[in-house]
Amino acid sequence: VVVGAGFGGLAVARELRDRAVDVVVVDANNFHTFQPLLYQVATAGLDEDDIAYAVRGIFRRQRNVEFRMGRVTAVDLDARTVCLDGVPEVGGAVIDYDDLVIAAGAVTATFGVQGVEEHALGLKSIDDALNVRAHVLHQFERVAVNPTLIDEGAITFVVVGGGPTGVELAGGLVELMGVLGRDFQSLDVRRARVVLVEAGDRLLPAFAPSLGRHAVETLRRRGVEVILGAGVDRIDEHGAHLAGGFVPAHTVVWTAGITASPLASALAVETTKGGRIVVGPDLSIPAHPEVYVVGDVAAMPDGHGGIAPQLAPAAMQGGRHAARQIVRRIDGQETEPFHYVDKGTMATIGRSAAVAQLPGGIHLWGPVGWLAWLGLHLVMLIGFRNRANVLVNWGWNYFTYDRGARLLSAADIEERNA
Amino acid sequence: VVVGAGFGGLAVARELRDRAVDVVVVDANNFHTFQPLLYQVATAGLDEDDIAYAVRGIFRRQRNVEFRMGRVTAVDLDARTVCLDGVPEVGGAVIDYDDLVIAAGAVTATFGVQGVEEHALGLKSIDDALNVRAHVLHQFERVAVNPTLIDEGAITFVVVGGGPTGVELAGGLVELMGVLGRDFQSLDVRRARVVLVEAGDRLLPAFAPSLGRHAVETLRRRGVEVILGAGVDRIDEHGAHLAGGFVPAHTVVWTAGITASPLASALAVETTKGGRIVVGPDLSIPAHPEVYVVGDVAAMPDGHGGIAPQLAPAAMQGGRHAARQIVRRIDGQETEPFHYVDKGTMATIGRSAAVAQLPGGIHLWGPVGWLAWLGLHLVMLIGFRNRANVLVNWGWNYFTYDRGARLLSAADIEERNA
Repeated sequence: VVVGAGFGGLAVARELRDRAVDVVVVDANNFHTFQPLLYQVATAGLDEDDIAYAVRGIFRRQRNVEFRMGRVTAVDLDARTVCLDGVPEVGGAVIDYDDLVIAAGAVTATFGVQGVEEHALGLKSIDDALNVRAHVLHQFERVAVNPTLIDEGAITFVVVGGGPTGVELAGGLVELMGVLGRDFQSLDVRRARVVLVEAGDRLLPAFAPSLGRHAVETLRRRGVEVILGAGVDRIDEHGAHLAGGFVPAHTVVWTAGITASPLASALAVETTKGGRIVVGPDLSIPAHPEVYVVGDVAAMPDGHGGIAPQLAPAAMQGGRHAARQIVRRIDGQETEPFHYVDKGTMATIGRSAAVAQLPGGIHLWGPVGWLAWLGLHLVMLIGFRNRANVLVNWGWNYFTYDRGARLLSAADIEERNA
Repeated sequence: VVVGAGFGGLAVARELRDRAVDVVVVDANNFHTFQPLLYQVATAGLDEDDIAYAVRGIFRRQRNVEFRMGRVTAVDLDARTVCLDGVPEVGGAVIDYDDLVIAAGAVTATFGVQGVEEHALGLKSIDDALNVRAHVLHQFERVAVNPTLIDEGAITFVVVGGGPTGVELAGGLVELMGVLGRDFQSLDVRRARVVLVEAGDRLLPAFAPSLGRHAVETLRRRGVEVILGAGVDRIDEHGAHLAGGFVPAHTVVWTAGITASPLASALAVETTKGGRIVVGPDLSIPAHPEVYVVGDVAAMPDGHGGIAPQLAPAAMQGGRHAARQIVRRIDGQETEPFHYVDKGTMATIGRSAAVAQLPGGIHLWGPVGWLAWLGLHLVMLIGFRNRANVLVNWGWNYFTYDRGARLLSAADIEERNA
């Protein structure tokens, strides 16, 4: 049984392709979400369907994989069962397992900052991204009716967190402002503000300092107000209270951090301070060699004395490793320790600008970094159809400076006001 | 002021392109919905973004058009004002007008049949279509967990209404069954049923009898159970009670008819039995030459002694006509009567099959009708980007027999159970 159809969970099932095992993949959604592009859905650059792919479709040709839709509510490590809330009317379900891989991912971490849950938006799921998109478009419709709302921060968009998600979202939002400026011609869209707040003293702390500086410069040149070294004390309905002052804003998106899926704490196993499940060198849980934990939900030893980062490539490598250990144990062999291979990281800043940090100290930035980013993400997107649609949408966005997916329905607004 | 951004409303605003008038288009959604393709969203063939286009984007280059998002709650014909519920927090809005065009469209008509509102799904909006899609996918997930539900009709899909929408939806659903059969390999998908129910004695009553027969034959050959001459007495949670028997089904989609937008009855003007607003030959309301009503919400005299049909081309022609009368009145000229020109109608039955009835008694069917349908709809879709995406999706669907957009999220299910 594989819990989660993210990068880690899919890698497990794929690696077991030609093995004489039955794999059951469980996820609360019937689709895999390509999380690195969520910010593009939030900024109306891509449709949600472009970055989601039905799990049953992914494994259609892999006969030993079965999919079960449902949220895992409990795992009984002794009885070796997984409880699903399942499809509600049929009263949930219990699935027995021989081997279990938990790849349940991560959720937004509020770090106990007051008001994040009530007044900030997250960006960890398709629903989150659509919510950000509806919220941003809604603010412009409000201001079109009543421009005095601008003074209260109705079209001020605060992004908290200077990691890749925050940088990408801020860059995408400032481009969206340009598009909306043409949509709302009676409005002085130059009064719209995109503010990126980072508690640390630089952006992209996981990257080389020079790339972080490049991101700051590029974002500032494009109109993003980048505030460094300012923690967020509190968020309320009026805006973000920073250590150094108050930013009036009706929109705050919180990308400041993630914490392991709540399933981790439900398991009664050892977790780190960040909530990640502690696993051995082979990624199994101590005393339960038949249970592996991979990806963002695990504190995976990287084989070099550290912990693997919470990134898609690490989840995929962890998933493949867990799958191989399952096979080794079936074959009566000893398990092997996991070795994380750093293949580099990337973050896009916006139109023709991205930073990439590759192994061997290679740094790319500007248009070159952007092309590398573009190619990699197209290759990684699952399925020809999604790729072709993404290409059409990106081409359209690039050449017309437009954003096609800026849709807001009456139902969206009613929901937002409910 | 133009109420509604459907085919009629857009035609009004476009026709006033080069005129010295200020146009305000009002709609509850910020996008135009290409309604003829809703059934493709419902059957997972297209993404909702493929058939929706932001109204502000459509009129970006037309400087005399302003868009206001909001639902029209009342019209004061004497004071010449339109009331919007507007963006809720700012307390609605009142817009003055010199000339008004009401193009508010139609909604699903239940004809007083018991249980339609509670237990049947509609197909008149993007939300409706996504709801049908989520509902259908959800039934398969339920049955995957508990196959005994099949006997209760969990994967029996009843479509009520033998007009173009019903025929297109039934044809699309039976194709989706094939796709889902590959997704759910442990399930005997041949037990899934698509049932099309029509009270009259033939399908597509607006078409020539031979085309209706072609539709029946094609649908039956593809696996749709077509039941003619059977009115629906009542719909409940167990299924559809027909005049001739009971069909157990957890899904009933009601496409049996439409009625004018509720705005028509809110106006205190004369309406027909079907709720449509009675207008004069020039499409204005009696005693209010400055108020025009066009499209599905109006009973437009077709200039040949009848009433124009509730179809997109009629709405567009009516919209253009109303716009020209506004200009004539400004220029001090008499208004002219409306003459509806029948350009034919089409309905697709599924893969490589459609029927088309063109002026001059030309009938097309089978692959030829389908190609005509395909070309027309591609040309009519607004915007290059939507067209390219639709082409990619259609190409993918055609050559792979796949449906890309079959996404169902945990939130969808929670919403459905709320």
